[in-house]
Amino acid sequence: MAPETRGPAMHAFIASLYPICRSITGDGLRETLGRIGKHIPLTLYHVQSGKSVLDWTVPLEWNIRDAYVKNAAGERVIDFRAHNLHVVNYSLPVRAKMTLAELRPHLYTLPDQPDLIPYRTSYYTPTWGFCLAHNELVKLQEGEYEVCIDSMLAPGTLDYGECVLDGTCPDEVLISCHVCHPSLADDNLSGIAVALELAQRLQSTPHRLKYRFVFIPGTIGSITWLAYHQDAAQRVKHGLVLTCVGDAGGFRYKRSRRGNATIDRAVEHVLKHSGLAHQVIDFFPYGYDERQYCSPGFNLPVGCFMRSQHGTFPEYHTSADNLDFVRPQALGESLETLWRVVHVLENERTMLNLAPQGEPQLGKRGLYEGLGASADRRGYELALLWVLNQSDGTHSLLDIAGQAELPFDVIVRASDALVWAGLLKDANSP
Amino acid sequence: MAPETRGPAMHAFIASLYPICRSITGDGLRETLGRIGKHIPLTLYHVQSGKSVLDWTVPLEWNIRDAYVKNAAGERVIDFRAHNLHVVNYSLPVRAKMTLAELRPHLYTLPDQPDLIPYRTSYYTPTWGFCLAHNELVKLQEGEYEVCIDSMLAPGTLDYGECVLDGTCPDEVLISCHVCHPSLADDNLSGIAVALELAQRLQSTPHRLKYRFVFIPGTIGSITWLAYHQDAAQRVKHGLVLTCVGDAGGFRYKRSRRGNATIDRAVEHVLKHSGLAHQVIDFFPYGYDERQYCSPGFNLPVGCFMRSQHGTFPEYHTSADNLDFVRPQALGESLETLWRVVHVLENERTMLNLAPQGEPQLGKRGLYEGLGASADRRGYELALLWVLNQSDGTHSLLDIAGQAELPFDVIVRASDALVWAGLLKDANSP
Amino acid sequence: MAPETRGPAMHAFIASLYPICRSITGDGLRETLGRIGKHIPLTLYHVQSGKSVLDWTVPLEWNIRDAYVKNAAGERVIDFRAHNLHVVNYSLPVRAKMTLAELRPHLYTLPDQPDLIPYRTSYYTPTWGFCLAHNELVKLQEGEYEVCIDSMLAPGTLDYGECVLDGTCPDEVLISCHVCHPSLADDNLSGIAVALELAQRLQSTPHRLKYRFVFIPGTIGSITWLAYHQDAAQRVKHGLVLTCVGDAGGFRYKRSRRGNATIDRAVEHVLKHSGLAHQVIDFFPYGYDERQYCSPGFNLPVGCFMRSQHGTFPEYHTSADNLDFVRPQALGESLETLWRVVHVLENERTMLNLAPQGEPQLGKRGLYEGLGASADRRGYELALLWVLNQSDGTHSLLDIAGQAELPFDVIVRASDALVWAGLLKDANSP
Repeated sequence: MAPETRGPAMHAFIASLYPICRSITGDGLRETLGRIGKHIPLTLYHVQSGKSVLDWTVPLEWNIRDAYVKNAAGERVIDFRAHNLHVVNYSLPVRAKMTLAELRPHLYTLPDQPDLIPYRTSYYTPTWGFCLAHNELVKLQEGEYEVCIDSMLAPGTLDYGECVLDGTCPDEVLISCHVCHPSLADDNLSGIAVALELAQRLQSTPHRLKYRFVFIPGTIGSITWLAYHQDAAQRVKHGLVLTCVGDAGGFRYKRSRRGNATIDRAVEHVLKHSGLAHQVIDFFPYGYDERQYCSPGFNLPVGCFMRSQHGTFPEYHTSADNLDFVRPQALGESLETLWRVVHVLENERTMLNLAPQGEPQLGKRGLYEGLGASADRRGYELALLWVLNQSDGTHSLLDIAGQAELPFDVIVRASDALVWAGLLKDANSP
Repeated sequence: MAPETRGPAMHAFIASLYPICRSITGDGLRETLGRIGKHIPLTLYHVQSGKSVLDWTVPLEWNIRDAYVKNAAGERVIDFRAHNLHVVNYSLPVRAKMTLAELRPHLYTLPDQPDLIPYRTSYYTPTWGFCLAHNELVKLQEGEYEVCIDSMLAPGTLDYGECVLDGTCPDEVLISCHVCHPSLADDNLSGIAVALELAQRLQSTPHRLKYRFVFIPGTIGSITWLAYHQDAAQRVKHGLVLTCVGDAGGFRYKRSRRGNATIDRAVEHVLKHSGLAHQVIDFFPYGYDERQYCSPGFNLPVGCFMRSQHGTFPEYHTSADNLDFVRPQALGESLETLWRVVHVLENERTMLNLAPQGEPQLGKRGLYEGLGASADRRGYELALLWVLNQSDGTHSLLDIAGQAELPFDVIVRASDALVWAGLLKDANSP
Repeated sequence: MAPETRGPAMHAFIASLYPICRSITGDGLRETLGRIGKHIPLTLYHVQSGKSVLDWTVPLEWNIRDAYVKNAAGERVIDFRAHNLHVVNYSLPVRAKMTLAELRPHLYTLPDQPDLIPYRTSYYTPTWGFCLAHNELVKLQEGEYEVCIDSMLAPGTLDYGECVLDGTCPDEVLISCHVCHPSLADDNLSGIAVALELAQRLQSTPHRLKYRFVFIPGTIGSITWLAYHQDAAQRVKHGLVLTCVGDAGGFRYKRSRRGNATIDRAVEHVLKHSGLAHQVIDFFPYGYDERQYCSPGFNLPVGCFMRSQHGTFPEYHTSADNLDFVRPQALGESLETLWRVVHVLENERTMLNLAPQGEPQLGKRGLYEGLGASADRRGYELALLWVLNQSDGTHSLLDIAGQAELPFDVIVRASDALVWAGLLKDANSP
């Protein structure tokens, strides 16, 4: 399957979501969940403002209809309708006339990137503000301005969605992505699009593990999910937060707090054998929702799968994180890489050599060609020897792939052939 | 003792064995064992064809008197009497006339090394064939050829020899080399010659450990030995497979599957302090008989001691692995290096400092020169301090040599002096 | 506090001690202890010659009034009054006339450093000798010389001093420096001066731990201290030997025998964040009194804190280790660096996150600024997250500082703030 196959479709889905003004609550969030739910079975949860969730409280719901700053001539010099990043997310409603000097403390720009609109939020500190390109700011003349933010903060709900795909065993894989950013394409519409594709592909593929996709607002969403789904959290054997998976940068994987969980080793293995640029880094307690999943009271085996890392690229949290910044091919590569990770998780197990004294004679079982095996065949035959040698009950197939420096799928093929020949069995089967 | 002392004698022994057509069974194998047995006490074992050994079956015995391909003029264009590599080892008997086109699938060459005859075997797949230089193949004219392989596959025996040299304690050292290759000098006549010299030297030297030298056909031989000598296998505390120890390449040591066995650390220590080029690599489950000794049902602490590694040098398994390829000096160096490994194994132990509070006063015991010690003496005095400091029952002398970065023999001399002074005792003695 | 603040005072103290002819016993040693005792409360111990201490015996006390070699003209060509290094420390008394040839075996020089007087001792081998510049030796004419060493070896005492500063908990910090070297400034008057300043500063600062400063002759002094203070030795939780801390070289810290004791990690952390040149090396069983503290029967967590390492710089144990070789600024840096180590030891502890599920909401507690935190503030906010994430009872604050790659004091500030906010408690408190 060529990596770009589903890239254009994912990009188109991102484009369809891009104009919506999302936040951690409100209509934009619900609209986004609704569109995801058109493609996969999505259970929606609605938690009322004021509810206690762990150490936090669900905030008031925020909605916005319009916002602008008009100059004396009545022209919108800042216009929410032109770009929803122009308003500080969760701004209080405002209707006032004021001088530029009075307005100035409420204007946010990026002087070092003067053409870009920054993305700012103020969820828990009641305030209001506008974001704009620094080059636009400097054009503003002294004079009186009309300021309007037609927003509303009121009791409502915090919404999130779950898509659960049952497997044949109760172990769960958690795939989490946040859905609270407005017009930002890589962060995090790319994560939504790739998660959605992954869920669709899993729906049409038999799988052993149970997959739980959660589409949540950042931080407060994962806090809420952890508060209300502690049983599911206990069943998480592997997990990934997906974010910024659509840009052209190399992969970056941030390990779970455990550092050596199966998910960490699976992703590292897949990236190592991918031939693609990548970097694997240790856990640190800031970033995205892995912060919550990896808090010490949960300590779930959840890593964070990214391309360019939040906070380290110039387009991050600006209007330059747009539909040009995410690429169909990059989205496709991310999807296929995650699919290989799924393959590892599905097939990872520990086997037991049933003829552990000496090497069993593979030739008489048709497993060994000897004279004139092809190079590809040769890797497979080495895999047979590695699996036999290491399957003493203490090394999993992923361990063996690492020791042998062979791709996991070659190790799995060898394991399957040895099971078929009666030389190997699952160490956990009776 | 100069490293080259015994080199010429070993080279001469290799030369005497070189013409014999050995295989995993048959007269050539027996003749080889007989010649080894002229120098050291060798117990011969004969296991009948058809016997089950672990997962394998002892094959029919193979012998060969002659083989050739004659052209229409009656000239031998391929002649076993010129080089025993010309026949695929274990070839079925053949007497036939055929065209070049019919013969062609039975001819093996190395197009990339067109002057060399390859070495090919087919022990377990019944077939026949000839090996020749690619430059000779291209000279063959169309026409009818007379093909003769005067070989015989019949019930007989698989033979191997053991030389056991008792020590004063029951722990065993296994030295294993294969004896099944026809006219190939480095692989493995060099191993045979060095093992033989080592056994002879041990016969004339008091030693603590029991040494078991096994001269066996590759794979099926070690399988058979493991099947019939499980008690001895349990007593193996250290072991080495010797192969390709006569060429001019640097040393390469392949660790046992355990990775950190005393033998692994002993060889690594000796090589590190040898001043000779060397490389130490991790275990992998192909190569020589270490594959069998290190199968998970045995997991013996057996490494593989080589110079050039099988499969990685152009002369490997070709007619270029001849008497010029093995060098007296290299054989001598291999022997002396192994002798130093024997010295480590013989002297490795864990001691206990009997005056562990503070440093004992070495000066009053004549162990410390203070003013004006020579550089050599200085290393020895450091060794005294290291042995005292680390001998708390958890660090062996080899451990201490590693920490101190001093040669093992200096550590042993220091340990002996401290025992003599009453400051140290063997941690395991009462 | 600027690092050089106390440098000049320390240098002046060194200068006042420099002329005294110290040894491992005798008046010079007592005079030195007396001067230290003028500044801090010092308990003096006097152990009689002949007493057994561990494996050693307290030697006879040595004192010297004068020593010289006069030529035929009656001129002092070697004069103890000019430099006390001219006499081999612990020389037997001598009064004799002899030729240059007879005198020659008793003369020690450094041919490679011909202007310097070497420092030589012979505590336990009865002998006598003179040390002089090689350039002076070569000027000596044949002829008769008058040799006088007006020394005395007689029953007396070995003296040492202890300054104990109680804390609020019984755990002890041992600071040890030797006081037995004559006119050598870096080795070890610098250690004495810095230890004295550290003790004075601790006297005026509240502290949790108990500090025990020991001023002892090298080797026999620490042997004696260990023999007579085994209870105190058992209470040592952290310890440092101070030596050569006044020269202009970078820091060198030699780990305790344990290798990973808190003191090792504390010093390494402080040096890493100091911005100063430094190197951390593993323990080895020679050097200064850490040899005794780290003997296996005690194995105390005591490292050795140095600038230039004994034996590795050309001025070591020569007349060039003089008052120019030690620098006020270097002494000040050493003091301040050790003060930071004290800060780590005082504040090192393991905390417990009281809201371990998810991140607690820091904003509502005024701990998180969000929009527009300064760079300094940002490091502090990261520290809050690290402390919360890692405080599961298995990671100490020093562990967390290492993982976060943040300075320990930022971690401590974060920990204090979280305790204040009720989110964290000491893991060992009820």
